[in-house]
Amino acid sequence: MKVSKFGGSSVSNAEQIKKVLNIINSDEDRKITIVSAPGKRHKEDVKTTDLLIRLYEKVIDHLDYISKKEEIIQRYADIIHELHMSDTLLSTIDQTLESYIATLKDKPSRLLDALLSCGENFNAQLIAEYNNSQGIPTRYISPGDAGITVTDLPQNAQILDQSYEALYKLREYDEKLIIPGFFGLSRQNYIVTFPRGGSDITGAIVARGVRADIYENFTDVSGIFRANPSIVKDPEVIDEITYREMRELSYAGFGVFHDEALQPLHKDRIPVVIKNTNRPNDIGTYIRHDREINSNNVISGISCDKDFTVLNIKKYLMNRQVGFTRKILGVLEDYEISFDHMPSGIDSISIIMRSKEIQHREEQVLNDIRERCDVDELSVEHDLAVLMIVGEGMHRIIGTANTITHALAEANINLKMMNQGASEISIMFGIDVSDAEKAVKSTYEYCYNGQCLKI
Amino acid sequence: MKVSKFGGSSVSNAEQIKKVLNIINSDEDRKITIVSAPGKRHKEDVKTTDLLIRLYEKVIDHLDYISKKEEIIQRYADIIHELHMSDTLLSTIDQTLESYIATLKDKPSRLLDALLSCGENFNAQLIAEYNNSQGIPTRYISPGDAGITVTDLPQNAQILDQSYEALYKLREYDEKLIIPGFFGLSRQNYIVTFPRGGSDITGAIVARGVRADIYENFTDVSGIFRANPSIVKDPEVIDEITYREMRELSYAGFGVFHDEALQPLHKDRIPVVIKNTNRPNDIGTYIRHDREINSNNVISGISCDKDFTVLNIKKYLMNRQVGFTRKILGVLEDYEISFDHMPSGIDSISIIMRSKEIQHREEQVLNDIRERCDVDELSVEHDLAVLMIVGEGMHRIIGTANTITHALAEANINLKMMNQGASEISIMFGIDVSDAEKAVKSTYEYCYNGQCLKI
Repeated sequence: MKVSKFGGSSVSNAEQIKKVLNIINSDEDRKITIVSAPGKRHKEDVKTTDLLIRLYEKVIDHLDYISKKEEIIQRYADIIHELHMSDTLLSTIDQTLESYIATLKDKPSRLLDALLSCGENFNAQLIAEYNNSQGIPTRYISPGDAGITVTDLPQNAQILDQSYEALYKLREYDEKLIIPGFFGLSRQNYIVTFPRGGSDITGAIVARGVRADIYENFTDVSGIFRANPSIVKDPEVIDEITYREMRELSYAGFGVFHDEALQPLHKDRIPVVIKNTNRPNDIGTYIRHDREINSNNVISGISCDKDFTVLNIKKYLMNRQVGFTRKILGVLEDYEISFDHMPSGIDSISIIMRSKEIQHREEQVLNDIRERCDVDELSVEHDLAVLMIVGEGMHRIIGTANTITHALAEANINLKMMNQGASEISIMFGIDVSDAEKAVKSTYEYCYNGQCLKI
Repeated sequence: MKVSKFGGSSVSNAEQIKKVLNIINSDEDRKITIVSAPGKRHKEDVKTTDLLIRLYEKVIDHLDYISKKEEIIQRYADIIHELHMSDTLLSTIDQTLESYIATLKDKPSRLLDALLSCGENFNAQLIAEYNNSQGIPTRYISPGDAGITVTDLPQNAQILDQSYEALYKLREYDEKLIIPGFFGLSRQNYIVTFPRGGSDITGAIVARGVRADIYENFTDVSGIFRANPSIVKDPEVIDEITYREMRELSYAGFGVFHDEALQPLHKDRIPVVIKNTNRPNDIGTYIRHDREINSNNVISGISCDKDFTVLNIKKYLMNRQVGFTRKILGVLEDYEISFDHMPSGIDSISIIMRSKEIQHREEQVLNDIRERCDVDELSVEHDLAVLMIVGEGMHRIIGTANTITHALAEANINLKMMNQGASEISIMFGIDVSDAEKAVKSTYEYCYNGQCLKI
């Protein structure tokens, strides 16, 4: 059984929805489909989800919201008319929006979640109804009926383990099932949306729940590129990648598939494939627990993320002082600051974190470290970029580090920091933010058009 | 003013002692001299310090120790006769040894310290008396009279800050002063020896106390080699190096000058020069607070030390979990384990330590980490060697990492770990112990006979 998820641009209008249903109906194994809210139809268009936020803002500001509501209904009306469907759903949509507003207007964060859920929810109902009308037995299932039970904190839903057992029952349906992504139901019976990754997460949860053979994630690109296509011209598409590689890359800036969505798949080792709704025959990128490594695919991808801050701490004879590093980390913990890398020497340590972790309280943190840790020198560096070269087993292939550092040296890029641990599938380089794009370009060229793959 | 220290081989017999006194007497600024115990005169010889340990063992085992004592007295008798000095000192030596044995035989660790101090102490008296007899006003000063006051833990003396003020008064003497190295006097009036670095430490303490312009450390080599001469044939001598570089190199296996001895010099920035007693006109190696960096001296030295153990810890979403690393380090702290490097990724961390830190209790430590830290995977790797490439400002010179990794790749050496922090003056590579010598050879050749210096 396959669980297929379609992103916003795949379900933005009638033509796209027909493509989606062709994909679903062409394969018997595609039993369960997760859909997003209608996305942009053209560059200047507004996503349905953003229209819903505008509606919410009017309501909580006690302003006239009718025109905003009409805009939303019009989005679905456009699709319904193009698909020659009956208008019945439009009054359901109107009634649902009005009823959320009436019952929740005094609970703003609950209202926001309820309205946000509408984008996906109406679309799922519409798509199920249309497919049924085409003679394919299809059923809309709400997250509540599917058993997607989540924690009760608004805009921050976390799946509860009981959901997986409930979801397994979805296997019993004979029809094709259409489920809206992005939200679940709390035990307090509130609609709650997922914080990050939206429908990707719902798809992953359902795939795990029904023990799918594969989770298909349809987007508008034919897979994951080895590097950001706005930096590198026509980068290669990755054919196969591991969960861990995907996590490293998405952490470091790859936006195609949210790493949060990998978590439910991790334990049961359910593979993911990233495919293109507009070119469904393209093979796409497979994300698996393991992959075969050969000399042609050592490095999976290259990414560079900006906005990092480094704390540099020097302490003479630091390595002899048991507990020194732990004390420093204790200060960071008090501020709930999470850090990403910590390259160290015998008398110094660098702690690398995203700038947002320490912003607005940098002075306090530094003062606390000075007071509590008896450091010799403490300095802060902003504007660090982190270049990540990601590849399973890379550290076992002799010469990888050399290939990368060679490319960076030829591009005249100074390596401020470097980090590679034993179990690592990545090498991290700290570089100046002004070198970020050059670093991606030069390593990409050298790795994929040069000699790196032939090591 | 210069403080000069002479190692064991420099004061092992009459001929060597004459060389030392020539060096001292040829320069007015050489006011204060620290001497070691007589070292080996030839390869099969026994150091005086080892003779003293044998004497100590006989005494505490209640065995006849006379022959051992005679051997010691004979070492000094040989020197005294060759120098045509009077025998008076020999009876002082005999009486001193007997009095220590008589008064301390029930306090073994006190007796050991007292006997150990004799090697340096008798030699200092002998050398002072001889130089005086040659018409150069010279005075023997005991560590107690000099004001070297230390903590009272046997074989583990730590200098007390009050010493520095007392030592400054040594400037008031007109004569040349000879002080024995290796020990001080506790406030409880016991002789206590330094744990590591022996006479090097005494020299550094005295140099700081009298605010010397330079601390001359005379040995039997003309400076510090850029790599271990038993691995690399005829390595270059380093002309200038910083304290921090010296510390990194000596930490990683360079034995010429003990890094512990740098500590007293650090704060007052007193430079050290490592010189050769047998070739006093050779320039030697200067150790300073700062040095000028140019394209010819980026990398100061290369060392490789064995016997490291790595703990590899994996934890999915580790970087999101504030406090995780601190918890791991808390376990190590409970066992008083100090670690050296900690390369990390977003889901993993490697903690590198000397094997002796964790030996005999590895299982307990691992169990504690498993119990307290909820790790996904925990593994241990033994037989790691750590290759250190040391050079101030190295990370500011583009291409250094490339040069090194290139050399290692050409030598077919797999890099298991890599670490370079922002404030770093070294790059660390974790490699298999079987690759250790090859790694030093290949990087040395490439850096000093290849193109590394021309970057």
